[in-house]
Parts: sequence; structure tokens; C-alpha cells
Amino acid sequence: MAGNTFGRLFKLTTFGESHGKAIGGIIDGCPAGLELDLEKIQIELDRRKPGQSAIVTQRKEPDTVEFFSGLFEGKTTGTPIGFAIFNTNQKSKDYSHIKDSYRPSHADYVYDKKYGFRDYRGGGRSSARETASRVVAGAIAKQLLSGVEINAYVSQVGEIKLGKNYEELDFSLIESNPVRCPDPETAGQMEDYIKKIKKEGDTIGGVITGVIQNVPIGLGEPVFDKLHAKLGESMLSINAVKGFEYGSGFGGVLMKGSQHNDAFNPDGTTATNRSGGVQGGISNGMDIYFNVAFKPVATVLQSYETINKEGEKVTTQGKGRHDPCVVPRAVPIVEAMAALVLADYHLLARTNKI
Amino acid sequence: MAGNTFGRLFKLTTFGESHGKAIGGIIDGCPAGLELDLEKIQIELDRRKPGQSAIVTQRKEPDTVEFFSGLFEGKTTGTPIGFAIFNTNQKSKDYSHIKDSYRPSHADYVYDKKYGFRDYRGGGRSSARETASRVVAGAIAKQLLSGVEINAYVSQVGEIKLGKNYEELDFSLIESNPVRCPDPETAGQMEDYIKKIKKEGDTIGGVITGVIQNVPIGLGEPVFDKLHAKLGESMLSINAVKGFEYGSGFGGVLMKGSQHNDAFNPDGTTATNRSGGVQGGISNGMDIYFNVAFKPVATVLQSYETINKEGEKVTTQGKGRHDPCVVPRAVPIVEAMAALVLADYHLLARTNKI
Amino acid sequence: MAGNTFGRLFKLTTFGESHGKAIGGIIDGCPAGLELDLEKIQIELDRRKPGQSAIVTQRKEPDTVEFFSGLFEGKTTGTPIGFAIFNTNQKSKDYSHIKDSYRPSHADYVYDKKYGFRDYRGGGRSSARETASRVVAGAIAKQLLSGVEINAYVSQVGEIKLGKNYEELDFSLIESNPVRCPDPETAGQMEDYIKKIKKEGDTIGGVITGVIQNVPIGLGEPVFDKLHAKLGESMLSINAVKGFEYGSGFGGVLMKGSQHNDAFNPDGTTATNRSGGVQGGISNGMDIYFNVAFKPVATVLQSYETINKEGEKVTTQGKGRHDPCVVPRAVPIVEAMAALVLADYHLLARTNKI
Amino acid sequence: MAGNTFGRLFKLTTFGESHGKAIGGIIDGCPAGLELDLEKIQIELDRRKPGQSAIVTQRKEPDTVEFFSGLFEGKTTGTPIGFAIFNTNQKSKDYSHIKDSYRPSHADYVYDKKYGFRDYRGGGRSSARETASRVVAGAIAKQLLSGVEINAYVSQVGEIKLGKNYEELDFSLIESNPVRCPDPETAGQMEDYIKKIKKEGDTIGGVITGVIQNVPIGLGEPVFDKLHAKLGESMLSINAVKGFEYGSGFGGVLMKGSQHNDAFNPDGTTATNRSGGVQGGISNGMDIYFNVAFKPVATVLQSYETINKEGEKVTTQGKGRHDPCVVPRAVPIVEAMAALVLADYHLLARTNKI
Repeated sequence: MAGNTFGRLFKLTTFGESHGKAIGGIIDGCPAGLELDLEKIQIELDRRKPGQSAIVTQRKEPDTVEFFSGLFEGKTTGTPIGFAIFNTNQKSKDYSHIKDSYRPSHADYVYDKKYGFRDYRGGGRSSARETASRVVAGAIAKQLLSGVEINAYVSQVGEIKLGKNYEELDFSLIESNPVRCPDPETAGQMEDYIKKIKKEGDTIGGVITGVIQNVPIGLGEPVFDKLHAKLGESMLSINAVKGFEYGSGFGGVLMKGSQHNDAFNPDGTTATNRSGGVQGGISNGMDIYFNVAFKPVATVLQSYETINKEGEKVTTQGKGRHDPCVVPRAVPIVEAMAALVLADYHLLARTNKI
Repeated sequence: MAGNTFGRLFKLTTFGESHGKAIGGIIDGCPAGLELDLEKIQIELDRRKPGQSAIVTQRKEPDTVEFFSGLFEGKTTGTPIGFAIFNTNQKSKDYSHIKDSYRPSHADYVYDKKYGFRDYRGGGRSSARETASRVVAGAIAKQLLSGVEINAYVSQVGEIKLGKNYEELDFSLIESNPVRCPDPETAGQMEDYIKKIKKEGDTIGGVITGVIQNVPIGLGEPVFDKLHAKLGESMLSINAVKGFEYGSGFGGVLMKGSQHNDAFNPDGTTATNRSGGVQGGISNGMDIYFNVAFKPVATVLQSYETINKEGEKVTTQGKGRHDPCVVPRAVPIVEAMAALVLADYHLLARTNKI
Repeated sequence: MAGNTFGRLFKLTTFGESHGKAIGGIIDGCPAGLELDLEKIQIELDRRKPGQSAIVTQRKEPDTVEFFSGLFEGKTTGTPIGFAIFNTNQKSKDYSHIKDSYRPSHADYVYDKKYGFRDYRGGGRSSARETASRVVAGAIAKQLLSGVEINAYVSQVGEIKLGKNYEELDFSLIESNPVRCPDPETAGQMEDYIKKIKKEGDTIGGVITGVIQNVPIGLGEPVFDKLHAKLGESMLSINAVKGFEYGSGFGGVLMKGSQHNDAFNPDGTTATNRSGGVQGGISNGMDIYFNVAFKPVATVLQSYETINKEGEKVTTQGKGRHDPCVVPRAVPIVEAMAALVLADYHLLARTNKI
Repeated sequence: MAGNTFGRLFKLTTFGESHGKAIGGIIDGCPAGLELDLEKIQIELDRRKPGQSAIVTQRKEPDTVEFFSGLFEGKTTGTPIGFAIFNTNQKSKDYSHIKDSYRPSHADYVYDKKYGFRDYRGGGRSSARETASRVVAGAIAKQLLSGVEINAYVSQVGEIKLGKNYEELDFSLIESNPVRCPDPETAGQMEDYIKKIKKEGDTIGGVITGVIQNVPIGLGEPVFDKLHAKLGESMLSINAVKGFEYGSGFGGVLMKGSQHNDAFNPDGTTATNRSGGVQGGISNGMDIYFNVAFKPVATVLQSYETINKEGEKVTTQGKGRHDPCVVPRAVPIVEAMAALVLADYHLLARTNKI
């Protein structure tokens, strides 16, 4: 209930603080007999890891995952998969600048109020470092969902917006640049812009677009557990996310029903796809596509005023190695959460009919 | 798991199809000793019910709730609250136009594929009629959350956008017009526009803004069950919703961290509130505000082409009494879902500290 | 979390007090396409209902179940099945003898302490009347589990013990006598004994034996959700139950491993079945058999001393129409709970392998 | 859903196989601010560990727990507590005698049938080694439940039965002998008997009695989640358990209601305690006491016939270092499970009243 578990049948529980010994998790409910490609899991982790390019945080963490259980002779056994990523970067640091004061738009203040005190070393549990565990589990979920294609990419950084919809893009180019935008020209502009922001000691927001293809018809449950509702929840649970829309999204507000409705083709597909692959909360076999809005990272490397525990004004200086823009490294996290959602519904769908 | 339960400690399970005997639900986990004002519950239902104004569906359903259990001498007893709303409008109708064909952008097709067949009388379980049960439970949750203020209003209909943020509005005017927009002038424009759309036999989308005030600090759980993630999920589970954003939302993407951060006041409040009352998934005591995007209702009273079960093209004519714009009647549903989310976290927060 | 839900995939939530308007429930997760024989459901209810013979309570309640949703053209639709049993026996009574005093070995005292007050009309939520809802759901679960045979019978009343194990009995005789003991001679002795006890205004305990046959191999989950652990929990949740054992049970304590082990036959069955059809928490295809111990009903029709809310000694007289021995009417409840457990694991087992 | 999580608010999820790298778990929902005595946790683990005396398995495993997260400056932070016990005893062994054949009354056969294959190195996930993780979590739960006293002891080994009830015993003597029976004379007899059984290469069953004292009134939920039902489930989930009874238990069957009822004292306590501290599923403040029946360990060091995967009869010889009687080492496991159940209800009880 304390919110560290995601999923019902394919279930991930995570643990770990940014500056503790290790982060990790347990995947419970992964079906037996899945041949796991461990290298693919590490590749996903490497897409998320710090220090991978000039436009992300320069922290050095290898983020190597170690599996403890649930695998035998290369296959999942049906028992829980325990894993950990040990923190190698645990140097004893000076936290005095954050120990007694609250960083604006961080979780410091609310943790102190909620729990009575907090682990003030870095973000603790609220650090995005926790998402590495999601990427591990998501990479396994992807392998379970053979046939389903899950891709995400950066479609906006600040004012720079990719002016194409997903069908015009070549997803094989996503990894061709450090921004993870499949349009090389826009990617270049975004990269330059992020570098400029970084130089200012500032940060900038962005949008990630997710696309899920080859989804079987019938995933999702009516009423509260609509497929897109769980997808939205999963995305909103990622650090720094402020919004989620799927299909026609906020733009659909402007349309009339006669324009918005997706006419059926004889084979049950639809001529348009404003529904975004989901009708009444249930996948209809068309592509699922969605946008996820990320705010700018709150840690700016500038001087700022804030308050300490006593409520006194203090001036402090942001320091450390932080991302100027979170979206390039968040792409694999978005994919991972989408995979977790789908894996769960994939198993649940086996129970719909007698 | 089949998705008809919402909440963990304050838990609502619903049942019922649009054209069955009754809809209703069970609220489990409502604490004992709450003096319930039953009239207030009915008032919320009346805000949602059909036929209440010229711009909503003209179906006549009194939507009177009947309680079966969990109350004694005017107070909740701590045992489950069972309730039902009997369908009085169950006239045997001709469903031949939808029995064998699939209405575009409805759930007909996916239900047939998922379950092997479907209850084709009206929307069945996918009908928004189901949300009446949510309104009942939400009205009880509101009473549990004494002190917390939950308000929602229509902020956009098609292209007509209310150009004020929530702090400039007088919430007591929300119920002063059938649109439920607290700005009388904009409300008038919206009303006229909806009437025009209705005359065309068409429908139009809209946005509802929700505002939650006087929220205690510390509601919400880190990681997967962030307060805004569950809030987003709850809103996305409402029929016709395509998007959710809170605080700075999609607009926050454009901002730099140095602009976006909310500076602390000495008392722990913040000078600005781009965070939207939630930091790291936990309420910080500031107002929570969010937008919910609704697509246009799929049932248009026009002639359209679609397919039947055999995949043959058929031309059919939309008929019946439907909403030209869903947002006026969805306002109490948005409030109800917000109340359910908060009631759940309110109880959960009692377990955070020793 | 307040404990009114049972099951995970095949999930029953119940509501209702003994003297309220209605009791009932919602079954969520019943797969679509199950042709329901409604008469069979009523037959199970009739096995549980009061007034069915001279050795049970003489209250008159028809216990007719009414379904609200989830069924269409005789089949389950995959949506929640809402149902209620309206209380027809709600005459306004004099509760003064229990309103202010606490009946010994009842839940009166703990309800008052836990919730601050209680619905003092009869047992309220703690009344065994609640189990009627379980019987409805169990009867549906039985129909889902086609092929699986679930039988229960009375094997002991006070000192009178049926000296045969289940393999020597003819289950078709269970319903041939009001005690529900398939051995006519022992049944006669039990019946006479219960009548004698009743005449004394007293009550007596008993044991019900349950037998589940034709169980597929592989139901149950290792570790916490072992099949027999959930079965035990389900039985212990029935009113008045004090103990549960399966397979060799408490008698197995006396045995050596070399005697207790069940040797395999070449086809994977076992020569003996001390395991009771479950190994390591997972069904092995052999018969599952178990015993459930019921204490004597706490309401005795005698004069007794107790305390009132002020902690003062008061003398009161038990009255009303109560069961002298609970086991004859509890047989269908034991079967219902067993069916609910198995239905849940039956669905869950669909997710074990890729 | 795959059964590796226990509890709802105080929630333990475990992972690990007997011969893998590590076993361990995540405790989610432990309230913040609990000062943890780590030494006490290790002491509980030492009570369970192999090789501690001449009457238990002679395997050598130090069973040292390592914590990864959730603790800061000696206190719980409210975030998940991740931990592992690394297996130091992972020597590569010859498993050919169990790889292809099924040991009688073990989980080998059902694992193969359920999952399609199994990790055949030792018991894998079905090994009682998994319970070490429960002991870690239980030891933390005990510290959360300050004031509540949880004790368990061996009350029967084979035919040797401790002829005293718990009130006549001195719990401080439980750890005074390797059997963990607080009556020194009976303990001596049990110890001799176990040694004799061990010499025969055989095993023997036993009973553990658990006693929980100083329980607050009001723990437990009516209907499905009765306190004793969850307690029973928790005990039945321990390896080798065949039965559970509480209060008067199976003996209560023989009693009349007039004898069995517990008369109230003026202060709300009861003169007798046949209820076993629970009425209607809710604790009444009296001592909770219960018995747990363990079958003899299935691994006997004798020659026996069984079948291989092809269904052919094979003769094999039990070998390895196994417990001749499981109950001495199971005492801390029983206490741990009791503590987990109570911790969960302790938190849940905070939500019962407004």
C-alpha cells in the first residue's frame, strides 16, 4: 500500500535510495519458460544510465544488474525474480547544503512532513535513480510481449517541437543521436539547445511520445482499469511528469464527434485512429500512441533562496551533476512502464473467457 | 482484477449495465462514525442525472439511490455500504441497429472480441451510466474529507476557452448555469455553442478543470502511487477522457527550471504553485489543480457507414437521446473521482509514521 | 482492506447486515460465456436457509436471490455480477436485551470497542446470515469449475463421530437427512442428539469434512498463497470455525516420514494420499480432503450473567430462534468457500506459463 | 498474484531459491521512525539457522542478513526495506538423483507439471530456506508491535505431548534447550526421541503452540479477513504444516454452548478464554493462543522407490543433511508469521474510525 509495487499479475516491487547500498526489486508473476536475453536487459539499462552523452548528467554509474533468483538454465522458472543494482558511487559527500534546507520543487519538504524526518543524502527514495529498477523489469516484460513493438522518442524540448507524427518517422533512428529524437535535424536543434541551457546552469522541459504496435485486441478492463488509465498512471508515476494524453488527447477537445469518430474498415481496423488504439478502455488492435509531458529538472546550478527547517530564509547554490533535460534518459523509462502495463494486461486477458 | 474496484482502503466496487435492472456498488472501508447527509448524496446524483437542462440528454431517469447496509442511526458503522440505483427506464426497445453492427469509436467491437459476445442493449457496462455509482461513493468520500474543498468546472468547450485561471473565479457560480462554467459570460457562449452543435446532430469535446483546496500535507505515496498518478488514473477512467495534466502540465514543458521552481515562503507554502500542490507524488498543502480533456461523444445523430459482425459495410442512423457535449454532466464525476482518490490517501496517511 | 472481499481473480465482495434491508454482493472476474443454471444457485441457498428442518433455527426467510447485472441471455458477460437477497423478516423487534449488554462469546463487545458503536439489531454484520452471499457466489464458482466435484458433509456432532473416512461413503446420501451426514445410522444418532441439546436450550459443536475431487494438477502458488493455506483461511473465515486440517492433519504429527510419505504410482498418482491432494502448496491431482471444526453456537436459550456497557453485571435470558448446532446448515457454506478458492486458482493457473 | 507477497499494509515480498545466489525480500509499508535493533533481527535468524544443535540439520549456513535500503541513522524511513541473505553454501553438487526423479511428498512433481520444468537443485523455491526472509521481516514486525508479546514453543513431538497449557509454562525457558519446549523434562524426552529417529534415518512430526499477549482490542476485520483466519493462513503457508486451531480448537467441537461461552468480567475481560482472544474475527484483548501441526519431514535418509520423469519405477537413496524433526527450527518462523499478521492489522486498525 506504500506504493512500491506496480502491476497485479506481472508485478514489480522496488526498493532503494539514490545513495544507499543498492537499488533493486522483485518481479513476481513472470510466467515460467521465458528464455531471457540478459544482454538486452543491460542494453536498456545503458540507455538510461548517467554519463552516456554530453547532454546528460556526468555522474558515473555503471548500473550493472545482478539477478538473484527466478532464472534457471537461461529461463524464467515462474518464481520471483530478485535483482539489485549496487551503488558504486557512494562516496561520502558533504550534504550540509541540503540536510537542513529544502530545495524548491523537490520532495525534501514533503518527506520531512510526511515521515517526520528524511534520508537527506541526495534525493533518497524520490531520486529518479529508482527508475533503473523499472527499466530492468520493463526489459523483461518486453521479452514476454514477443511481437508487440514498444517505442518511445523525444518529440519536444522546450519550444522545439518535432513537427511530424509518429507514422512519418523511422524508429530505427531513435538511438542515432543523444537526444533520442528520430528526426536527425530536429534532434540536432534539440541537442544544441540543451547544451545552451546546460551552460546557463539551467534546465528545460520536454515531451516524450510513446507508440505501441501489434497490440492484440482485448487488452484492458472496462470501468476503473481501462488500458489507457493504467498507462497514464504508469507514466505519471515517472519523476517530473506533469501530463499524459493518448490518441487525439487535448487536441480532441476541439473536434466534433462526426470528425473524431474512427470509421471501421471491413477487417475491423479503423480508417483513422483518433481513439489511439483503445476504445472503452480496451485495445482494438490499432497503434496505441501517447504523449508524456516532463517539467524542467528542479535542480538548477544557480544560486537561489529557500528556507531551512526552522523556516528561515537561506541562500544556497545548486551543485552536483544533474541532467539539464530529463527526456533523453527518460525514453527507456517510458518504454519500460508501457511494457509493464501491457505485460500485466496480457496475462489478465487470459482470464476473460471460460 | 477485472477492474470494477477503485481504491485500496476506501474502496468502491461497482456493478451494472445501462439497461439492466440496476446499477450500484459497495463501498468497503469507510470508517465508522461518519454522520452521513443523505440529501447531499442525492444532490450530487442530481447534478449528474440526464434531463436536467436543454443542453444534455433528454432521457428521464430519476437516479434515486437506495442504501442497503453499512448505515445505522444516520452514521456509517464501518461495515460495507451496499447501494443500488434501480433503472426505471428499461423499456424494451429496438436494438437491431446496434445488435449486429459496430458503432464507430464505441466499445461494441472490442467487447465482442474480448468476451466472445456482448450485452448489446445500449452501452451495457461501457455506458457512462455506470458513473452514477461513482458519484454516490464520491459524495460519501467528500463528507469524510471534511475541510477539504473539491470543485470542478467546465473550462473549455470546443474552441471556446475560459481565459481565466481558477484563482480568478467564484466557484459559487459553477451551478448558476447549465454548462457549469463559473464565468457567466463564457458559460453563455458555451451554452449557445452546444445548442448549435446539438441542432446539427453532432457533438463536441471539452475540458474540465478540477481544484482541490485545504489538502493536508503528506497525502500520496512515493514511486508508483504518487498522488497525481492516481488522480490521473482516476480521471482517465472516466468515459471519453483523452488527457490529464496537473500543475504546469503540458505548458511546463516550455519552461526553464529557474522559472518553474516554486520558491518557499517561510511557512512552507510556496510563492508560486507550478507544482500543482504535489511534490514527489506527495501533497504539499498548496492547491491541487488539474485539467481533464474529454473527446466529443461518439454517438452522433447523423447517418454513417460502419460494419456489421460479418465485416460487411452497412449504413446506419444514430438515434436516441444523447449528450451533445459530455462535460456539463461530467463535472460531478470529476469531483467524485477526486474525492475517492483523496479519501483513500487520507486513510493511508494514517499508517506512515509509528 | 476492511475485509469484505474474497479472491483475487474470481472476486466476491459482500455487504449487508442480518436486520438491514438486504444482503448481497458483487462477483467480479467471472469469465464471460458461462451458461448459468440459476435454479442450481437457488438450490444451494435453500440448503443453507433457516427453517428447513426440525434441527435448525425456525426463522422463516425465503432467501431468494435477485441478480442485477453481469448476465445476458443466460450467460455471464464478463462484467460484474451484482446480486441481493432482500430481508423479508425485518419486523421491528425489541432489542433492549442486547442493545446495552454484551452477549458472551459474541462480537457485540469487540464491535463496540473497534468502531465506537454498533448496529445492535441481531448480529449485524457478524451474523452468519452474511454467508448466504457466499453461497450464491460459490454456486456460480461451482458451475465455472465443471468437472471438479466439491462435497462436504457432517462428520462429527459433539462426541458422535462418523467412524469412516470419505472413501467409504456415498456422497449421494448427504442430502438424504437433515444432518447432512452420508451415513444414515450415524446421521440418525446425530439428529437425536441435536434434538436433545435443543430441548435443553443448549447448543453443540461439530466437524464438517470437505472433499474436492477431479482437481487439475498445478493449482495453488508456492510460498504464501499455498492452495491449502487459502483453503484454510477461507474456512476459518466462516462463523464459529475454530480449526482446520487437511490430509493427515493433526494426526500426521504422530507419524514418521517413512510412513507418511506418499509413494508415486507410475502415472504420477500416489498410492496413499496423506498429502491431501496438495504438495508444496500446489494440487497434485489427488483428492483434496479436509476437516473444519465448529464450536457450539454462542446463543443459548438459558439465563446467563453478563455485563452491560457500563461494566455492570446483568442477568439476561437468551431468546430468539437459533441453531442448536451449526454444522448441518454450514455444509453448503464450506462447499461454497472451497469453490471460491478453487475458481480463483483455476483462473490464476492460466498465467503460470508463457 | 503469484503468491510471494504477504500482508496488505505491512507487506513482505520474498525471492530466492535454496541453491541460488541469495534469498531476501522487500518490506513495504513499515512506518517511518521505528528505531531498529539489528542485532535482535540476527538473533531471530540464528534461532532458525541450520547447524545450531545436534537435533537439527548439520548444514552450515551463517544466514547473515544484509540491508540495502529503508533505514537511515538507525531508523526506518518509511521507504521499502530491501534485504538479502547471500547463500554461502552453494557448492556445486551432484543433483542427478533428484534431477530426473520425483521425491515422494515433495514439490518436485507438481512444479514440473505446473511450470513445465523446475530448478532441480535442492528444493528450489519450495525449500524451507525461504522462511529465513520471513524471520527477518517478522523480527522487524515484532519491534513495531512494542508491548505485544509473541511466543511460540514446541508442545508435541510424535507421541510425546507436553501435558500443560501455556499458562502453566515459563516462556523464558523456551530457549533453554534445543527442542524449544519450555518444560525441561518433556524437552529432554523430546530431544532423546528426535535423536533416536535421526539415527534411524527417519523423521517425525510435531506441534508448535503460539501465544500472543497484550494484544490491543479491535484488531482483525469482520467477514473474510477475520484475525484468526489470516493467522491460520499464515501458519498454513509454512512448509510442512497440516493443521491450525485456535482457542478451544478441535476440542471445542465436543462442548456445549453453555460450557464453551466465556463469561464477561466487569472490565470486559473474560473469566475463561475458549474464544482464544478473538471474537467474530476481532481481538478482544485476551491472549491469542493456537496450535500448528507439522507433518514429518519428507526427506528420509533411507532407500525408497519412486518414479522418474518417464514414469518408470526407480529406487533411490535419501541423502544430504536434513532435519529429523522440523519443529525446533520452526518456532521462530511461527513467531515471525504471527508478528507479520499482527503488524498488518495494527496498521489497518488505524483506519476503522473517523
